[in-house]
Amino acid sequence: MILCRTIPELKAAVAKWKRELAEGETIGFVPTMGYLHEGHASLMRRSVADNRFTAVSIFVNPMQFGPNEDFDKYPRNEERDLAIAGEQGVDLVFLPSVEEMYPKRPLTKVLVSGVTERLCGASRPGHFDGVGLVVSKLFHLVQPDRAYFGMKDAQQVAVIKQMTEDLNFPVEIVPCPTVREPDGLALSSRNVYLTPEQRRQAVVLSQALQLAADRMDEGAVTPAELTELVKAKIGEADEAAIDYVELLTYPRLEQPEADVNVHEANAPLLLAVAVKFGSTRLIDNRLLQPSEVHAHV
Amino acid sequence: MILCRTIPELKAAVAKWKRELAEGETIGFVPTMGYLHEGHASLMRRSVADNRFTAVSIFVNPMQFGPNEDFDKYPRNEERDLAIAGEQGVDLVFLPSVEEMYPKRPLTKVLVSGVTERLCGASRPGHFDGVGLVVSKLFHLVQPDRAYFGMKDAQQVAVIKQMTEDLNFPVEIVPCPTVREPDGLALSSRNVYLTPEQRRQAVVLSQALQLAADRMDEGAVTPAELTELVKAKIGEADEAAIDYVELLTYPRLEQPEADVNVHEANAPLLLAVAVKFGSTRLIDNRLLQPSEVHAHV
Repeated sequence: MILCRTIPELKAAVAKWKRELAEGETIGFVPTMGYLHEGHASLMRRSVADNRFTAVSIFVNPMQFGPNEDFDKYPRNEERDLAIAGEQGVDLVFLPSVEEMYPKRPLTKVLVSGVTERLCGASRPGHFDGVGLVVSKLFHLVQPDRAYFGMKDAQQVAVIKQMTEDLNFPVEIVPCPTVREPDGLALSSRNVYLTPEQRRQAVVLSQALQLAADRMDEGAVTPAELTELVKAKIGEADEAAIDYVELLTYPRLEQPEADVNVHEANAPLLLAVAVKFGSTRLIDNRLLQPSEVHAHV
Repeated sequence: MILCRTIPELKAAVAKWKRELAEGETIGFVPTMGYLHEGHASLMRRSVADNRFTAVSIFVNPMQFGPNEDFDKYPRNEERDLAIAGEQGVDLVFLPSVEEMYPKRPLTKVLVSGVTERLCGASRPGHFDGVGLVVSKLFHLVQPDRAYFGMKDAQQVAVIKQMTEDLNFPVEIVPCPTVREPDGLALSSRNVYLTPEQRRQAVVLSQALQLAADRMDEGAVTPAELTELVKAKIGEADEAAIDYVELLTYPRLEQPEADVNVHEANAPLLLAVAVKFGSTRLIDNRLLQPSEVHAHV
């Protein structure tokens, strides 16, 4: 496995790959902030299976953290990360410093409107501006044919898909399923912050989403009823403080009418939650298929 | 010469080129709004000389025109444009419709701050946002190694260089000299709008810039003295209405101190003018090298 810490090293490696690719062969890319877990590993295995070469980036991007967020204490473990990437068959890891990625203050912004207005876009002002910038930079540096993202960050997938489409990036965005602990908790690098009691209570997120999915299977229900159900369930965990619980169309992330039966929606619906346990903010979501969407497909 | 009107056609042609490129061979790109003149032709010849393949785009981009600007009446002559491109040895012309480039309203913006704040960035609000968007799209579609731009639009070159650097586009930006009529008027597709009398008077732009360059060669002079000299000269043409006359550092486009000797500036200086003759807005500029810049290099 090749390890690149500088942009010239990465460019040289990518140029060599491009020359070695036979017709129809491709490069896959998994951008990460490191502290890798099985969710990341599943993206890497998917990319290794789909492509001739797979590159992984590990970069905790300061531009996507707010001033009061956890950039400084975001967990890092380079040695373990490299071992995990190696075990999945990754060909190259790009591990740049902040100075390498931002030698000067960038004057250019890549801003996506619409899909960034709700959920984490509203809770974390500027977050998706930082994501758009760093993903644009990484796409230009790695020049992949496909890039793999976990659906745990469903809004991030929607934002990157929108950006890729609007700007004609020659990259296919491949969303991949959320990987969960046996009890249902979605894997996240931030889970390491949880106290044992918070960790025990955090299972309430996936349980609440499951409750909503079950309720939907039972028949007609309004968006407000579903989000109230989820809020009530999460409220059972005494350390949980809800940031948001929202039901939106996917991938446009627009609000459906509050008082209509969700089965009459004409797009998949994303039920998304963000919940704080102490200072640790966890997110989770579930895509719900209104029966009408199936009927119309 | 290949003519592509759709994105799939262009992508197929570019993919074929990429397979045919030997090591060290490159693709050159000349983005234009058509109504080609010798300025465009000089960019094409340069690209043809530098690269294995040269692509030209002809697209009057509505996103870079303001609501009261000349998008609808911007001159177009497809047949003549294709003949000119063919004569320069261009390999491919991409001639998309507005619907092909913008099938939906884009939600993504590529915004460059700083270098866009003055000159045409101030006179034409939103203009460079449209330029950033369309150039990003075209770079992703054509995937060139080099892109050629005329220095007549010096601010456009500065904006695109900044964007390319900030976003790590794998494209070298090659600025090329302004091409002029025998009397000094910078070539522009918009020159066709001028009445014979306006055309006769329009020579005052290049004459005023020359006057400033001569004054600078004589010795110490302040930015304010130079811009006043240019304004006075342009004022001699009775149909000329000045939009701006500015002297700025290049390529950052920042204002030098108004009352210091320009020879003490530590960057090249761009003397840029925009002047309206009736409803026709012309721009021109000249890069001035302070003697101190030479001394320090």
